[in-house]
Amino acid sequence: MDYQQKSIELHREFNGKLQISSKIKVTNKEELSLAYSPGVAGPCLEIAKNEGAYKELTSMSKTIAVISDGSAVLGLGNIGAKASMPVMEGKCVLMNEFAGINAMPIILDTQDTQQIIETIANIAPSFGGINLEDISAPRCFEIEDELKKRLKIPVFHDDQHGTAIVTLAGIINYAKLSGKDTSSLKVVINGSGAAGVAIAKLLDKFGVEDIIVCDSKGAISKDRGDLNSMKQTLLEFTNKENKSGSVYDVMRGVDVFVGVSVGNLLKSEHIALMNEKPAIFAMANPTPEMMPEDAKEAGVFVIGTGRSDYPNQLNNVLVFPGIFKGALENNVSQITDEMKINAALAIAGLIGDEELTSEYIIPNAFDKRVVDAVASVVKE
Amino acid sequence: MDYQQKSIELHREFNGKLQISSKIKVTNKEELSLAYSPGVAGPCLEIAKNEGAYKELTSMSKTIAVISDGSAVLGLGNIGAKASMPVMEGKCVLMNEFAGINAMPIILDTQDTQQIIETIANIAPSFGGINLEDISAPRCFEIEDELKKRLKIPVFHDDQHGTAIVTLAGIINYAKLSGKDTSSLKVVINGSGAAGVAIAKLLDKFGVEDIIVCDSKGAISKDRGDLNSMKQTLLEFTNKENKSGSVYDVMRGVDVFVGVSVGNLLKSEHIALMNEKPAIFAMANPTPEMMPEDAKEAGVFVIGTGRSDYPNQLNNVLVFPGIFKGALENNVSQITDEMKINAALAIAGLIGDEELTSEYIIPNAFDKRVVDAVASVVKE
Repeated sequence: MDYQQKSIELHREFNGKLQISSKIKVTNKEELSLAYSPGVAGPCLEIAKNEGAYKELTSMSKTIAVISDGSAVLGLGNIGAKASMPVMEGKCVLMNEFAGINAMPIILDTQDTQQIIETIANIAPSFGGINLEDISAPRCFEIEDELKKRLKIPVFHDDQHGTAIVTLAGIINYAKLSGKDTSSLKVVINGSGAAGVAIAKLLDKFGVEDIIVCDSKGAISKDRGDLNSMKQTLLEFTNKENKSGSVYDVMRGVDVFVGVSVGNLLKSEHIALMNEKPAIFAMANPTPEMMPEDAKEAGVFVIGTGRSDYPNQLNNVLVFPGIFKGALENNVSQITDEMKINAALAIAGLIGDEELTSEYIIPNAFDKRVVDAVASVVKE
Repeated sequence: MDYQQKSIELHREFNGKLQISSKIKVTNKEELSLAYSPGVAGPCLEIAKNEGAYKELTSMSKTIAVISDGSAVLGLGNIGAKASMPVMEGKCVLMNEFAGINAMPIILDTQDTQQIIETIANIAPSFGGINLEDISAPRCFEIEDELKKRLKIPVFHDDQHGTAIVTLAGIINYAKLSGKDTSSLKVVINGSGAAGVAIAKLLDKFGVEDIIVCDSKGAISKDRGDLNSMKQTLLEFTNKENKSGSVYDVMRGVDVFVGVSVGNLLKSEHIALMNEKPAIFAMANPTPEMMPEDAKEAGVFVIGTGRSDYPNQLNNVLVFPGIFKGALENNVSQITDEMKINAALAIAGLIGDEELTSEYIIPNAFDKRVVDAVASVVKE
């Protein structure tokens, strides 16, 4: 079955996936006078007097903007803003279907970092939160950092933090299942884009001490002369033994391989390099770094992928609906590292010790408990 | 009854007026694979290949953005962006309720003309059209002009053109009823903000030859040394006899007074200055330039106001839902003067000759024929 062709047909049939509608009827003068002029002056003046009333009297204050410049879309790359819209509408659909919240997509006709920052800052008061999406690294780091400084609403780059949280959740349950201690896990992350960097940071915050990040040239180490500032920052807490070489070279003796780069990377000979009961989080899309069948045959203890047709699907949909639901419900102005860790713990904790198996370390994407488990820990 | 207080309660009860929801369900892996990854790559690539597919495959391409900086809100003035949101949500509600189209509000955290232009241009590809709203003059003219040059979707400043179209519709039917010829009508417009300027321009395009515009200092004439560039432009086609003096001075012998400035301006002595069968379009809000009771007593032939509690309500809701419905349905990239004139003719034409009375020169705001009558003329 060709999902892409079926999806085109679905999108054409419905003319896109979102609808915006009125919560109130306007069928007579009385209703018009309350929804609009002259009555609407009341709520306007109330907000002018007391900005806090904005959250009570408008629906936009409870709406999440999903914003992209189309520079790093799915596995498709820089396909441009308009071509990214079906993904952005999809993200809004998932926010609505999984968490019941309002979300609207905005695509940007610029890929200039400063223009993106200014534009989002200028429209930000409209919204209750901002989900940055599919913006390429390293620009995504600067954009998120600057907006977090300037805005009073949560800004969350899902490609970074959604992926990091679901990965951490998987690693927590893997450690439990394998009897290993998370702090002593040795982890290699292949990919130093948005996801790779965020995973490394969150694992570090959680207390994982031995992390090596690789880019297309191999391990990121102090010996490299070609590192951008973000990769240099990674060296402050990764690769403490300053190993160099290819990703395969640094896989020797590690417990966990996290792949957020290219598919079809690992063979059984690479698994043989790893520690006992190895875990592979192979999140390249649509082709993972190693197919689950091959991983099992090579002796991998836990294999997770981004795919819905295999067990242990590491899917951001476990994360972002709950993050924004919690942020809106609890008036959260920043998504902190502590909230991210608690979200990972909450997701992992939904699987009881007796249920935990190598094929069930992460809840199903449609597990209805997930969204509220995550939302409940997003609070200040 | 206090509309403002009741409106606050309504807004609080519903937590604002809009909801954004998914047109499709996502309750299982199959549906997730089509709405989002991996199937969504299909519509993305289709748009990347052929930008025309954007209109077929996304709902945002059929969504109107209602955008304001909060600088000239209703009769409330510069109350700021957030305080303007209930009006913007209201506008979106009316687009949805009257024309069945998707509309979303965006408020801007800047009142700098250039920043507004850049910000709107940067987010514009998200939308199928832009309704500028409650942006103060003269900045609104530059913002609209520049965006019309830069964007391929319709940009429509409703405070200008919506008001101008509904006024022209009223004048067309007033002329018919009074047996006067529109081209020979003498018209005074009091107010040289967004609405006053747009009304003057549209009446001129329609062929009304004798128009004088007044600002707070009286008639705009060549003798004035204090005119901004927009007011100077008005002199190219208004006040051809170069009259000067107060608004009352130039009302002598005119047929139509259009008020888009301050209320409580006209007394019976001013009506006495006018031509026979005079018309007063008193659109100041919430208190018109002259109350209908007083106008009738002073011998006014046709009085229209912005108020829903009197006959002849000159309400933009007769215009903008149809304008945008037509623009979306007919793939219109600019709202031209010809379309505006045709919209006014279409609105006026809904009242048959035998129905036309001095209390019924403009259709009721809830007349269901209006939206399609207007939409049908918005085509290239």
